[in-house]
Amino acid sequence: MRLSNYFLPVLKETPADAEIVSHQLMLRAGMIRQQSAGIYSWLPLGHKVLKKIEQIVREEQDRAGAIEMLMPTIQSADLWRESGRYDDYGLEMLRITDRRKREMLFGPTNEEMITEIFRSYCRSYKDVPKLLYHIQWKFRDEIRPRFGIMRGREFLMKDTYSFDLDEDAARKSYNRMFVAYLNTFSRLGLKSVPMRADTGPIGGDLSHEFIVLAETGESEVFCHSDLVDMDVPGSDVDFSGDLQPLVDQRTALYAATEEMHDSAEFAKVPEGKRLSARGIEVGHIFNFGTKYSDPMKAVVTHPDGKDRPVHMGSYGVGVSRLLGAIIEAHHDEKGCIWPESVAPFGAGVINLRAGDAATDAACDNAYATLCDAGLEPLYDDTGNRPGAKFASADLIGLPYQLIIGPRGLKEGKIEVRVRRSGEVHELSVEDAVARLAERSFSNG
Amino acid sequence: MRLSNYFLPVLKETPADAEIVSHQLMLRAGMIRQQSAGIYSWLPLGHKVLKKIEQIVREEQDRAGAIEMLMPTIQSADLWRESGRYDDYGLEMLRITDRRKREMLFGPTNEEMITEIFRSYCRSYKDVPKLLYHIQWKFRDEIRPRFGIMRGREFLMKDTYSFDLDEDAARKSYNRMFVAYLNTFSRLGLKSVPMRADTGPIGGDLSHEFIVLAETGESEVFCHSDLVDMDVPGSDVDFSGDLQPLVDQRTALYAATEEMHDSAEFAKVPEGKRLSARGIEVGHIFNFGTKYSDPMKAVVTHPDGKDRPVHMGSYGVGVSRLLGAIIEAHHDEKGCIWPESVAPFGAGVINLRAGDAATDAACDNAYATLCDAGLEPLYDDTGNRPGAKFASADLIGLPYQLIIGPRGLKEGKIEVRVRRSGEVHELSVEDAVARLAERSFSNG
Repeated sequence: MRLSNYFLPVLKETPADAEIVSHQLMLRAGMIRQQSAGIYSWLPLGHKVLKKIEQIVREEQDRAGAIEMLMPTIQSADLWRESGRYDDYGLEMLRITDRRKREMLFGPTNEEMITEIFRSYCRSYKDVPKLLYHIQWKFRDEIRPRFGIMRGREFLMKDTYSFDLDEDAARKSYNRMFVAYLNTFSRLGLKSVPMRADTGPIGGDLSHEFIVLAETGESEVFCHSDLVDMDVPGSDVDFSGDLQPLVDQRTALYAATEEMHDSAEFAKVPEGKRLSARGIEVGHIFNFGTKYSDPMKAVVTHPDGKDRPVHMGSYGVGVSRLLGAIIEAHHDEKGCIWPESVAPFGAGVINLRAGDAATDAACDNAYATLCDAGLEPLYDDTGNRPGAKFASADLIGLPYQLIIGPRGLKEGKIEVRVRRSGEVHELSVEDAVARLAERSFSNG
Repeated sequence: MRLSNYFLPVLKETPADAEIVSHQLMLRAGMIRQQSAGIYSWLPLGHKVLKKIEQIVREEQDRAGAIEMLMPTIQSADLWRESGRYDDYGLEMLRITDRRKREMLFGPTNEEMITEIFRSYCRSYKDVPKLLYHIQWKFRDEIRPRFGIMRGREFLMKDTYSFDLDEDAARKSYNRMFVAYLNTFSRLGLKSVPMRADTGPIGGDLSHEFIVLAETGESEVFCHSDLVDMDVPGSDVDFSGDLQPLVDQRTALYAATEEMHDSAEFAKVPEGKRLSARGIEVGHIFNFGTKYSDPMKAVVTHPDGKDRPVHMGSYGVGVSRLLGAIIEAHHDEKGCIWPESVAPFGAGVINLRAGDAATDAACDNAYATLCDAGLEPLYDDTGNRPGAKFASADLIGLPYQLIIGPRGLKEGKIEVRVRRSGEVHELSVEDAVARLAERSFSNG
């Protein structure tokens, strides 16, 4: 992408009303724009990162055997009356009346709708297990939206729903998502810790939050410190095999959010391993048995000929909020330092004297080669001053920056700066481009 | 994908309330489920096709130089008061009041919001041209939703917005989208005809609808028949070059929707070339100058130092409605016949006797090879009767069907059925799989 064709409105000043670093950097780097309280547009740079996060979440759901579909944003109030949650949900639910005076709502979650879908088509033990997910915009009318997209009102969420014959089978679905989430967050460059959590308005008796530790986290958390650096199961885990040992390995160690915290149990953690910190919730999984299938009459006929309500669970990932969590975990005073898996551009080409024929030619050439190598480079071909270009490249987090100017070119040299380490390599144009195209720089 | 793990609720009966074939087939093939009037869930099969359509639309926008971003679904009423459209839009606009009694709405389109974004960051002639798009769910509270997703209330739309210094430059942006749309619909297997159209509530003086001819189309259209089979510009068109001749070649021939129809002009079309037919609108482009930038004060400073309102256009594609249009154009009495570019699965493997060891082994083997070849096969490994499996494979439109049973295997043979032509090839397992993997069957 040539910057002159792109839309990247970076700001020089840190907006005064942005309290946390991810919110500040997303505004400064031209990633988002607030349209109303807690409602944001995703400008091209923010949208690009959001799509990469969404794709990783999707791939890990597919790998775990979940099937993608898509439910609408607008739901009927009657559906929520069936489960009894229409009144429970209170003011966080955005209620709407359509032109025919029917009561509707903007979905804050989809347990009712997916249960309605399941019961419409599935009636036999042969129809389960089912593991269905979608990635859709949700709306929760937060009384105090804050921290940018971290606690917005309109937000992108991946929610999966499981349908099983009985409690044992439901536990297997729960474990699938437990393991899938560990892998998902790890691919996004985040260290997540599963913690026993309160079930809140979703209900049920078994629930874990996946927490990323961060000073700016909204909630206090308590855990055994070994959980923070534990290796994740990884992409070769067999999701049809027994995942219980992988889950047990983690749940055996103390980890709880504030609501579920038990000081006496926490005191049993060896003293040097007791970690109390702040955390950001990036995922939440629930096993709630028949809480919805019972009132909504989603039953399946068992092999013994009897009908029983199907056992369910739901599993959420805050896709848009993850972008904030990643920045909280990966930044410095100059701007974003993306994990490679979500970097909006793989490299940058910085033209120090746009308009100078030799410099333009060298830049065009380098840019074309990096494009062909699939690096998705951003080429700063504008007439801005070099200082502004460097600041902008660091702010938006171009992982490798190819800096090309007439002075260096005279000696046949250009610079490659590595964003994360700050290292600078002076190389010939050919070597620099070739090494970038081969991805052979260390990202230390 | 193994069918036993998938969620494909096909129906045997044609639902009585579905009036047109695309609506009938989408319900029967388990692609969609109606949740409320005009509001649908996209079940896994429908979602898969929708995503493929969306991706083709995206690629052609990117190729034309448009930049992707994403605006929220919920907008503030105040924004629409600035343009004067808040009252104009009438009951089709879904109006919402949030918990703080602020007036909001579910966006039916985004001219106001994108104008607000543009004016917030762009103030100089150096900041234009800009061509920005997003693909987002919209809501229009149709008084009479019908034809399934063809005239739903919640629908997926790609909308692009152009910002240019003056009328001449705006015309160039218009031409880019004109040409991009011809290529887009062609890649989706559709013959589209651009027609002079009424501008309706969007406004402006230059507008074309892109119409796919279909008996079940909602509107009557009139055109020179040469337009229907005219070659599209294709993927190697230079979008930075002069596109006017490509546009003129089409606009020189008569083509108009009912609202813009001029019988006297139409009479000048040679008699054998006069086509009057019904059509489905799949795209609509508008050049509306300063209709929004003027009241909303989106001005840019020209090189002469004077501020003038920016010239704008907007360009919509009905992404979800395209799925219906594709089925209307590509089906037979048995079900869907997908253009290869959007087929949900590239091939099917049909096991005629699931549970028979030799048949299972041959199917597993074929399925694995087709997966490795990137064909995204669907493997019907269920215990259903062969007749039901064949009907289902034709209904959902598996383009190539590998039929494997114990009788054929004894003679070392299996069948490959080509969905579109009905041709059947009897081949050895190895040959059949190899030819499919090489994509060497004719799709005649």
